[in-house]
Amino acid sequence: MSKHVVVIGGVALGPKAACRLKRLEPDTRVTLIDASKLISYGGCGIPYYISGDVSDHTQLQTTSFHMVRDEPFFKECKDFDVITEAWTESIDRKNKQVTVRLKTGEKQVLGYDKLVIATGSSPRDLKIPGQELPGAFAITNLNSAIEIKEMVSKGDVGKAVIVGAGFIGLEMAEALADMWGIDTTVIEIADQVLPGVVGPNMAKVAQEELEKNDVSVLLGEFVQAIEGDGKVQRVRTNKQTIDADLVILSVGVVPNSELAAEAGLAVSPRGGIQVGKTMQTSDPDIYAGGDCVEIENLITGKPAYFPLGSMANRQGRVIGTNLAGGRDTFDGAVGSFAVKIFDYGVAGAGLSIGSALREGFDAFSAQIIQFDHSHFYPEKDLVAFELVVERGTGRVLGVQGLGSNGDGVKGRVDAVAATLKYKPTVKDIGNLEVAYAPPFSSAMDVVNTAANAAENMLAGRSHPVDPITFAEMWNNRRENNLLVLDTREQGNAEPFVQKHPDYWKNIPQGQLRCRLDEVPRDRQILLVCNTGGRSYESQLILEHAGIHGALNLQGGMGLLTRFGLNPAEEE
Amino acid sequence: MSKHVVVIGGVALGPKAACRLKRLEPDTRVTLIDASKLISYGGCGIPYYISGDVSDHTQLQTTSFHMVRDEPFFKECKDFDVITEAWTESIDRKNKQVTVRLKTGEKQVLGYDKLVIATGSSPRDLKIPGQELPGAFAITNLNSAIEIKEMVSKGDVGKAVIVGAGFIGLEMAEALADMWGIDTTVIEIADQVLPGVVGPNMAKVAQEELEKNDVSVLLGEFVQAIEGDGKVQRVRTNKQTIDADLVILSVGVVPNSELAAEAGLAVSPRGGIQVGKTMQTSDPDIYAGGDCVEIENLITGKPAYFPLGSMANRQGRVIGTNLAGGRDTFDGAVGSFAVKIFDYGVAGAGLSIGSALREGFDAFSAQIIQFDHSHFYPEKDLVAFELVVERGTGRVLGVQGLGSNGDGVKGRVDAVAATLKYKPTVKDIGNLEVAYAPPFSSAMDVVNTAANAAENMLAGRSHPVDPITFAEMWNNRRENNLLVLDTREQGNAEPFVQKHPDYWKNIPQGQLRCRLDEVPRDRQILLVCNTGGRSYESQLILEHAGIHGALNLQGGMGLLTRFGLNPAEEE
Repeated sequence: MSKHVVVIGGVALGPKAACRLKRLEPDTRVTLIDASKLISYGGCGIPYYISGDVSDHTQLQTTSFHMVRDEPFFKECKDFDVITEAWTESIDRKNKQVTVRLKTGEKQVLGYDKLVIATGSSPRDLKIPGQELPGAFAITNLNSAIEIKEMVSKGDVGKAVIVGAGFIGLEMAEALADMWGIDTTVIEIADQVLPGVVGPNMAKVAQEELEKNDVSVLLGEFVQAIEGDGKVQRVRTNKQTIDADLVILSVGVVPNSELAAEAGLAVSPRGGIQVGKTMQTSDPDIYAGGDCVEIENLITGKPAYFPLGSMANRQGRVIGTNLAGGRDTFDGAVGSFAVKIFDYGVAGAGLSIGSALREGFDAFSAQIIQFDHSHFYPEKDLVAFELVVERGTGRVLGVQGLGSNGDGVKGRVDAVAATLKYKPTVKDIGNLEVAYAPPFSSAMDVVNTAANAAENMLAGRSHPVDPITFAEMWNNRRENNLLVLDTREQGNAEPFVQKHPDYWKNIPQGQLRCRLDEVPRDRQILLVCNTGGRSYESQLILEHAGIHGALNLQGGMGLLTRFGLNPAEEE
Repeated sequence: MSKHVVVIGGVALGPKAACRLKRLEPDTRVTLIDASKLISYGGCGIPYYISGDVSDHTQLQTTSFHMVRDEPFFKECKDFDVITEAWTESIDRKNKQVTVRLKTGEKQVLGYDKLVIATGSSPRDLKIPGQELPGAFAITNLNSAIEIKEMVSKGDVGKAVIVGAGFIGLEMAEALADMWGIDTTVIEIADQVLPGVVGPNMAKVAQEELEKNDVSVLLGEFVQAIEGDGKVQRVRTNKQTIDADLVILSVGVVPNSELAAEAGLAVSPRGGIQVGKTMQTSDPDIYAGGDCVEIENLITGKPAYFPLGSMANRQGRVIGTNLAGGRDTFDGAVGSFAVKIFDYGVAGAGLSIGSALREGFDAFSAQIIQFDHSHFYPEKDLVAFELVVERGTGRVLGVQGLGSNGDGVKGRVDAVAATLKYKPTVKDIGNLEVAYAPPFSSAMDVVNTAANAAENMLAGRSHPVDPITFAEMWNNRRENNLLVLDTREQGNAEPFVQKHPDYWKNIPQGQLRCRLDEVPRDRQILLVCNTGGRSYESQLILEHAGIHGALNLQGGMGLLTRFGLNPAEEE
């Protein structure tokens, strides 16, 4: 009799592993079990289904050639059996069988030669009183999404509260506010949006974009209770009470590893099933992958949790290959991500500056802003780019980008991400050979410029100040005895000088060498220009003239204004 | 007295090296010499200046903050001297001095401590009779560009001939045909456009795009003479005579290395100045970089010539660092490029399939077509992607992409390009961790799918046929005893079956296992679907059923129709 492979879980990794296996070993018998009726869907598409960009939920379940991936599809096109609405109760490793409770209540025991655990993840449970009320949801599956879409499309939702400003929280905020005009508030316990994945400056730019699009963002705030009479009506936080018809809890997910743990498989203290590079668990006949496992973070070398659909798909293929007797490996991940926030694309890979410091790296970050295409080419957009670097070694630990050309931002992040596992230094990224033509990039592309800026900091030549620190210093300009030295041409600087004659002075960079006597020695100088290039150049001129201690604003006025601070327009 | 550095050449590398040096060592005296009045311009922007996208040529010479990079700019902002319209006649290495002929005719001898040769390149001279006629140009400098722009904007050009279908030739074709409505013909001696940089299938897709936009493309043809009475009137090729008011010779460039050779510096047989990784020539006091040098091709390990503005800028920074006593290196290049051809962006890196075979690699290529964004996301475009792979090792030697989302194409090529120097295999690229979110990519992105397709070929599982071979076989379908087995659903296949009932048969992939008896054993089967996925799956089903020899069409009907072949619409 041919080999029998049982796959538990049918969203992303499970079907991928099963399909790959069947292509390699058509004679192997495969049975896929899922607890839901809806399988093999693009879970990452849920916000776009709710927004209406994707009109029908079956679209998330269809192939690119418009076939719905349901039980008959897998039987006919992929030649394996799918049992839906079936709950896997236990794994008996000794006898190599799983016990499944069917929707009829009947129990079925399936023998296996090899087993794949693809049980995915569940929403992190904050145990908030009232979270069980109708109108409160944690979006992790298509069933909840269908309910929410029904509520919003019927016009039942005037106000929504989203708890958690991670990827899904922000995607949902856009879906509700932009497409349905719902009064939407995002509550985040951390002091920034996208905590842990971008630095505070980029987070502030993203937050500005949310607020510009009428999404309220509450930081450093957390939900104590969801209240209402038979349905959600209010959210009570540590600071206030907010009316809401809909509450979405998007505070992250945790691996579904109970089944594995009960079967005695190695599970990490943080709950992820432990797997090796071949995606085998502590039992070599059992594979696991996707949202239920931990893999190596290739930056830190430590086990990490990356619940991402793309990861699940790639791991699924590795498992399929290995089930068929191959020996493929999945070496770990650097945590590449992308997220659309209204007009901006935000992407990143590796560590954010916050994560790097928390992981114990002696790290700093270089922030730049630059056009995605040649500055003389008519179609272009500014890209904010941040490189996280280890002092001493110059190793690049992470990268984040943001801009309105989302494909361009993602492409640049991907280029750096692709090198991260090879432990590149800033010099490697400074010479990274990205393709150049004026309609698509500059001769010195964003990635090169960012690395060169980092190299100048590393060498102690560039003494930067980030927008957050600049804003703090500016807000206390009198106490800080501050003078902003604007190194742009007069036309750009004039409105600022007019507005703040005591704190904003203009000396264009080209005149600085001849006007050094106008630079006060007794004040804290902050050098600014449009993007950070001329202010760096000016800093070097001051240093060479013996005027030390001036700081140059990273990303210049371009980043500062996107960041929400425009001293020329202050009240 | 402070060190004196002389830089010969002021377009891209020269100013970059000089500026970097001055930032690091403000006390060093720098003199930059250029033969032209116009310096420090973005030469790659010339086609966009001629098209009118860039309205004024000074825009190519301005910084991103709108300052023209002329002599006063470099003096005031960068603190070094520039001498324009000055021809460097010789280098006296023994006495460390250069002799310069000024525009006055006067000669000047400049002593140097360190010298930078940034003499760039000149158009390859085909020595075509008549090439000196007014109206015939080789575009390598801004002066020619200004003349051409004047001709076209005055309406003096009704018909133009472009000789050479490389990057600049095709960019110029677009500039003339699209923006000025000029009847434009491109003549290329090779049998494809973009020879040496993309494979023949992608070249054919690019050619279709050119022809769709009224550019005539003549392949396998070469110019024997340019004729006319006091100005260009006709071009005579080996096959015909074509009327023309304007002829642009864009048949590549050769390094300007005479000065270096005469000074006894090592110059390669192909004419490039030889430099080490520090960009020093055979004389350690003399650096060279940009279009006049050869560097290592990191794929082949051999010296190679990469005349690209981006390369010059990055090398310029390395030279600047080293002039200031640093020790930076430029390790070589993989030849990343991008080019816009009407609605398409085309990008690549490493070797094309043709170059790989010429270099002696036992190479093949995998071609796919896939959406750039999730297939369920409303905004999306197909990307054609080709991966060039070495048999045996599975090493990825090159990548090329094409699609209407140029930023997305470039980003994907850059991600693969970034890894090439680390000698990745198809498994590395199959798991390349590019960022995923539905508005920007698929869970299995284009790069992953291309590598997985290559891996399946490498393993002997996938037996592909490329569009060119498919077209040849199809054109001789009777002699080849061909049957196209269309594995799509009936709606897609029907028009083809109707048109060619004897040669086109439809069995949807999901039905193939049950309808194997309908598959003839005595005919050459060509399997097709939309993109190549279901035809591969069908091939495996046939193989498993003992029906061998069927071939599946790479990139499917999606690539074939872009390639210009649509059997349903044949006459």
